[in-house]
Amino acid sequence: MKLSFIGLIAGLLLPVTMQAQQRPNVIVFLVDDMGWMDTSLPMGDSAYPLNKRYYTPNMERLAAEGMKFSQAYATPVCTPTRVSLMTGMNAARHRVTNWTSPVRDRSSDNPDDQFGPLDWNINGCSPVPGVPGTVYATPLPQLLRDAGYFTVHVGKAHWGAQGTPGANPYNFGFTVNVAGHAAGHPQSYLGTENYGNIPGKASVQAVPDLQQYHGTDTFLTEALTLEALKSIETPVKNKQPFFLHLAHYTVHVPIQGDKRFLQRYLDAGLDTLEAKYASLVEGMDKSLGDIMDYLKKKNIDRQTVIIFMSDNGGLSLAPPRTGAPHTQNAPLKAGKGSMYEGGIREPMIVKWPGVTKAGTMAKQYVMIEDFFPTILAMAGVRYKTVQQVDGRSFVNILQNPRSADSTRPLVWHYPNKWVPRDGPGINYKSTIRQGRWKMIYNMRDGKKELYDIEADLRESNDLSAANPAKVKALSALLSDRLREWNAQMPPLKNTGKAAPFPDETE
Amino acid sequence: MKLSFIGLIAGLLLPVTMQAQQRPNVIVFLVDDMGWMDTSLPMGDSAYPLNKRYYTPNMERLAAEGMKFSQAYATPVCTPTRVSLMTGMNAARHRVTNWTSPVRDRSSDNPDDQFGPLDWNINGCSPVPGVPGTVYATPLPQLLRDAGYFTVHVGKAHWGAQGTPGANPYNFGFTVNVAGHAAGHPQSYLGTENYGNIPGKASVQAVPDLQQYHGTDTFLTEALTLEALKSIETPVKNKQPFFLHLAHYTVHVPIQGDKRFLQRYLDAGLDTLEAKYASLVEGMDKSLGDIMDYLKKKNIDRQTVIIFMSDNGGLSLAPPRTGAPHTQNAPLKAGKGSMYEGGIREPMIVKWPGVTKAGTMAKQYVMIEDFFPTILAMAGVRYKTVQQVDGRSFVNILQNPRSADSTRPLVWHYPNKWVPRDGPGINYKSTIRQGRWKMIYNMRDGKKELYDIEADLRESNDLSAANPAKVKALSALLSDRLREWNAQMPPLKNTGKAAPFPDETE
Repeated sequence: MKLSFIGLIAGLLLPVTMQAQQRPNVIVFLVDDMGWMDTSLPMGDSAYPLNKRYYTPNMERLAAEGMKFSQAYATPVCTPTRVSLMTGMNAARHRVTNWTSPVRDRSSDNPDDQFGPLDWNINGCSPVPGVPGTVYATPLPQLLRDAGYFTVHVGKAHWGAQGTPGANPYNFGFTVNVAGHAAGHPQSYLGTENYGNIPGKASVQAVPDLQQYHGTDTFLTEALTLEALKSIETPVKNKQPFFLHLAHYTVHVPIQGDKRFLQRYLDAGLDTLEAKYASLVEGMDKSLGDIMDYLKKKNIDRQTVIIFMSDNGGLSLAPPRTGAPHTQNAPLKAGKGSMYEGGIREPMIVKWPGVTKAGTMAKQYVMIEDFFPTILAMAGVRYKTVQQVDGRSFVNILQNPRSADSTRPLVWHYPNKWVPRDGPGINYKSTIRQGRWKMIYNMRDGKKELYDIEADLRESNDLSAANPAKVKALSALLSDRLREWNAQMPPLKNTGKAAPFPDETE
Repeated sequence: MKLSFIGLIAGLLLPVTMQAQQRPNVIVFLVDDMGWMDTSLPMGDSAYPLNKRYYTPNMERLAAEGMKFSQAYATPVCTPTRVSLMTGMNAARHRVTNWTSPVRDRSSDNPDDQFGPLDWNINGCSPVPGVPGTVYATPLPQLLRDAGYFTVHVGKAHWGAQGTPGANPYNFGFTVNVAGHAAGHPQSYLGTENYGNIPGKASVQAVPDLQQYHGTDTFLTEALTLEALKSIETPVKNKQPFFLHLAHYTVHVPIQGDKRFLQRYLDAGLDTLEAKYASLVEGMDKSLGDIMDYLKKKNIDRQTVIIFMSDNGGLSLAPPRTGAPHTQNAPLKAGKGSMYEGGIREPMIVKWPGVTKAGTMAKQYVMIEDFFPTILAMAGVRYKTVQQVDGRSFVNILQNPRSADSTRPLVWHYPNKWVPRDGPGINYKSTIRQGRWKMIYNMRDGKKELYDIEADLRESNDLSAANPAKVKALSALLSDRLREWNAQMPPLKNTGKAAPFPDETE
């Protein structure tokens, strides 16, 4: 009785930081444009040739200590993924369906002969209402901060255009921001080039906040890692739980070599560009290792969740990549921008000490909007949002990797034009997956492809002609979802009307 | 007995943030290049004509609620002042005696016929040892953060060159940094000009971190104020004491009008440039008012110290100012860069609720290096530093504005060349003040001027010829201080030897 009284007194006196001490720290380690095969860690059941090309020992270590997800999905390009992560919304609903230009009110869509301009949310996400061209939502870090978390963003943000609140991570509820702004890639990875901040030559992609590394040999990945570790010193010291969103600029273009790691790949016979790309990957992996080492050194590794993820598939346009186009994620088809697996399937690993079992693999598919409710569940936060959250918590999968649900539909919606010439699965597509089945709808001609993803990872065998009932059922399910979300279809120039929903065509 | 046991238990369990809850928040509101007369608040016993030119109701309000200092000093230019504030060291000792170029290893000194290059700390201050061209010191915010404070920097930093740790406020122990980097002024105050961040046109002075205001009508002063208030939300909510270093870029050049306030000064008949300057001042004053309003609204005004200060005298070069040169701080002589009062005497106001008495004035002189021990005393912090601290706490003055010490010597040391042509009190000077007496030593010719500052605020009456004993005594005292601090004298080109100390010349 006396002890509980003391507990009560202490509880009343304690600030939020103290009450929250038992909640785990959460680190989202988000990589940019990293493909499912850009790692020495086989993300599925078995290894493929590209796993031999890359060297990512720390991803292997994290997977050995936690759980890897063989079927984790994002959207085909970066901003939609990042907005889904921040809001828990599906891209079809939040309407930030393409990457946002850092310049306000400028659509990144390419012009098209068949379709007119789409009225998507070209300015991205906004944590305050009333900003034209944005989706208004309550962001994840704001909810975590309100619940007592110390929230840190380091690296690429790319949630909104300059001149809108979404351009600045501080408006999303981050306590600390380093190097995040409206741009989607770095002008330069090189400290010797001031990450682009050369007077008169700086573009909007010049990386902010890293002045102490200017003129030095510090590669951007390393600078961000050092700043991330510095930023969490305060909550670690104060025993306040933290949320670290370490969103690396790697491995997005410009493909500049990280010379700490380059030689290995030149020695292996890769051409210069692909060697540089591989060195970007390894530099990112080293950062992961440094974070893990730090947690161990500070004795907080047992209280810290690490979630490794990429924001879309690996770039498979060649050039700038070398080799045959759209082979860079093999056995997955195509790459960034595409509705094929190469564009949306991501390397994902989660370590939640005390919950995930070491060295396990989950085969249940999950999607980027699931991060929002999952992280809030990990943090034990009760919350309210202005948006409707589409994601589902995957805590049950973390507790039991054999959790399975083959009825859940996943939806991708891309009524935009990413590149001037359509590529495989690229531009004007809508896609649904349910269980083993995946259907891709082409808004240009109404064509539908159907794949059995579990039997046909490469998506080489279109089963639509043989399975008209399945196509019809998936068309109806996809269309229902899109209508419910008030999703946009691109306007046809010749009629002025929107392209039909999947169930409105044969 | 039972209660103290509970207290003990609670004390053991409490994180730093909680133990510190009774400590005051401290806000240093630092203005750039603001002169002693750039305000409607008379900083001494009586008003002067320039007080009628400016409109700063919030400075008046702060003075009415706290204590103004009629004889507060900084160094003649910005970086030395800022480094003294961060380190507690006199500029003669820290050797960052001129403003630092944002470009590493580049001296901002002008070339000279008489003197060769001086080996001063051209890269500024460094919180880590071993960085060439820097003074290594334990910075104030680091000590406050170590003691449990939430530390925020917003605005101009300018402590060190790009490529050195001193370029980044995060390395000084700030938990949050907004818009602080290696540069000493903004490329633009205008949101419509992205504060300089125009692709291909950005200079090193482009202001970082404010992307959400790009393309909007938000003046830089307002953007920084909004960000400062946002940054302290977390500690206010968590009841963690905070240290806010709000270092405005105003009123440094470029003199761009703050159009929210411009018309008042045009209506008063000021020329366009001086009207713009006055609008910069009023915009800064509005920021001060907004901060004060916020503290009141959050009911933390009684727990929050506000220290208002400028970093050097008002710019008196004309052009860019209009009017006769060196009249812009009248009745004070000269301005920024000068050893005369116009270059070093600053508007300073301190409100420490429960300590300072409302509407009081302290006449005891204080100096910028005193801020370091004073703020640590306010915060009740026990600390160790790698540097020897030269400043003295002025807490006794805050407790009793009539505290007086006419024996303390103050020293200014400027063995550099700020502008290409020497101005009044500008370039190659060393100065001492003790009691009413002030002596200025000219390194070029050994000439010494002597003023009775209390009788002759305008420094119009050189008393050196009539008081050789006083000149001799002050020369000895100044030289002793400089030798003890291992202060630098500029090397004479014709002999290769350093210019003599004051007591080495007649």
